[in-house]
Amino acid sequence: MHPLLQLPPFINQRMDNSMNSVLLAGAMAGLIGSGVLGAAEPNAAAAKPMLVIHGGAGVERADLNADEEKAARAALEQALRAGHAQLSAGKPALEAVTAAIVVLEDAPMFNAGRGAVFTHDGKNELDAAVMDGASLRAGAVAGVHTVKNPIALARAVMEKSKHVMMVGAGAEAFAKESGTTLVDPSYFRTEKRWQQLQKALKEEAAKQAHSDIETAKHFGTVGAVALDKQGHLAAGTSTGGMTNKRYGRVGDAPIIGAGTYANAHCAVSGTGWGEYYIRAVAAHDICARVQYGGQPLREAAEGVINRDIPKAGGDGGAIALDAKGNIALPFNTEGMYRGWIGADGVPHVAIYKDDKLPEPAAAVN
Amino acid sequence: MHPLLQLPPFINQRMDNSMNSVLLAGAMAGLIGSGVLGAAEPNAAAAKPMLVIHGGAGVERADLNADEEKAARAALEQALRAGHAQLSAGKPALEAVTAAIVVLEDAPMFNAGRGAVFTHDGKNELDAAVMDGASLRAGAVAGVHTVKNPIALARAVMEKSKHVMMVGAGAEAFAKESGTTLVDPSYFRTEKRWQQLQKALKEEAAKQAHSDIETAKHFGTVGAVALDKQGHLAAGTSTGGMTNKRYGRVGDAPIIGAGTYANAHCAVSGTGWGEYYIRAVAAHDICARVQYGGQPLREAAEGVINRDIPKAGGDGGAIALDAKGNIALPFNTEGMYRGWIGADGVPHVAIYKDDKLPEPAAAVN
Repeated sequence: MHPLLQLPPFINQRMDNSMNSVLLAGAMAGLIGSGVLGAAEPNAAAAKPMLVIHGGAGVERADLNADEEKAARAALEQALRAGHAQLSAGKPALEAVTAAIVVLEDAPMFNAGRGAVFTHDGKNELDAAVMDGASLRAGAVAGVHTVKNPIALARAVMEKSKHVMMVGAGAEAFAKESGTTLVDPSYFRTEKRWQQLQKALKEEAAKQAHSDIETAKHFGTVGAVALDKQGHLAAGTSTGGMTNKRYGRVGDAPIIGAGTYANAHCAVSGTGWGEYYIRAVAAHDICARVQYGGQPLREAAEGVINRDIPKAGGDGGAIALDAKGNIALPFNTEGMYRGWIGADGVPHVAIYKDDKLPEPAAAVN
Repeated sequence: MHPLLQLPPFINQRMDNSMNSVLLAGAMAGLIGSGVLGAAEPNAAAAKPMLVIHGGAGVERADLNADEEKAARAALEQALRAGHAQLSAGKPALEAVTAAIVVLEDAPMFNAGRGAVFTHDGKNELDAAVMDGASLRAGAVAGVHTVKNPIALARAVMEKSKHVMMVGAGAEAFAKESGTTLVDPSYFRTEKRWQQLQKALKEEAAKQAHSDIETAKHFGTVGAVALDKQGHLAAGTSTGGMTNKRYGRVGDAPIIGAGTYANAHCAVSGTGWGEYYIRAVAAHDICARVQYGGQPLREAAEGVINRDIPKAGGDGGAIALDAKGNIALPFNTEGMYRGWIGADGVPHVAIYKDDKLPEPAAAVN
């Protein structure tokens, strides 16, 4: 066995006390219905699975024609169905998050996996992270070039290594050893993204000092948060970074706490101007406001994403989900590819700010 | 001008409201004394500068002979004096943190800069991060090999780039462009660290599955948190990583929120088993318990470092400082190089658990 691989994987002695209660509550749910125990026990009402996804907050109406918009909506629905299939089969939230993100990574219109944007040097540098709220295990990778599904590599780091975060050539070496699917870097070259880099380089040459502001809107990320039948949460995020970013820059997506975070109470995946999300420790801050400050999930998410980050000069969005099934999808850009799917298996998706996205029925605080 | 450099640097629109109050309180302090306004205004009582440092929680009695212990104490005192000189001259907390960490990086006995441990491949991979609590600006680097003072490069990323985190060859390229002092990688080769790697490799070969546990005690980090005369906080951390770590692994030190965090209320630098600190978002979680949960600093720091992280299977320590000058130095290992220096300029240092470290006199909650 290669020393990069490890058996047994990271053992988590941290078993949440509420787990036993959840099992009990699950057994009792058929008798007394959900919601009654839910008020006292964070996870107990979580018999109803939920999956929320995003495909990036950088989208603008001018970016998409009617066919592209239709294709994007179809891909979001496909991702929701893929994740929902896991949840309805009783699989852990982690599986739903991974399944949904793989679909989004494989679709060429989102800035992750196949559709990753180009760095300043004309490369595609991929980052991803995943976190399991029940065990607080996590895995993250940054700066990989040949990994078809970076979210799968993040999971391999979590499950098959003794580390949480691996970057660059070391992460590539681990990908090879752990059997993660590799592709030629040309797999990530899509014409639309290449033209975006050329435009950004031209803008930069014309007025260098403002280039970061001009190109900031080209950020994008995909992500998912899920709640499974056992009442456990998970979160994952994957990205191709920022168009024209410098070689070696790491954004918030692979930073546990910044772009990705999950615990027993709350799961978040962010999509925005990474530097501001890192400085705000955005994903963990949302969960901390819920856990320590007693704020409802939506208020906490709004406070971080739509108040604090814009005040600091950043922008973007996030998806958040708590153990009771409450969801929040704040953003302050023209659009955010987004959607959710509940126990009934009906996908709901939206792109622009004025798109109607129905609310889940049974959310409680 | 090279495109990696940027003018003006990251502009921070986030100006804390309490700043005006601090200036006012500072002017009034001579008349009414500190503490009166302090109860109402987090930063107002902070006329007394404070610097707290650590040199890593991995130290054990068996590691040091009497001469080595004496040299370590002298280096800690030198770092405290270097930081204190900045604070007593009225310089920002950020300057004190940087000055103290540069001394610790240059000293060969701490696992950062000169004394960095070796990776599995026999290299020295250096990581560092710095955060300014007043502006919430931050800079971080990971996986650099030729940067004499990684904390200086982290500051350059914060002040001279539009990014927060840069890794590997990209970070090295930025170091060159930003005028950061470079050295030959052999500068970081110290005999004691090389022998530690040989021992770890031998242990690993003998009983591979347990090698991570055996080598975990060889972690180490240096860090500093400071409170300046203006009542502003800053935090910084620098490390050579973990002996025998795999190429490309990133620990908690350069992760904003995990090993390093500062805001207007609280500053933390961690030193421990990085994977557990990342999963706990340790530094930010301590500050969140203070800010949202209303916990005293010491209780918050104890909860994260000495309760949650050991429960998950990790170990280590941290230093924490709030805007009122309260300090906490929790750890759960045999020793932690540590010390503090207050307004009077007298350094206090300790190494092992049973070493007496005096308490600052005037801390309030």
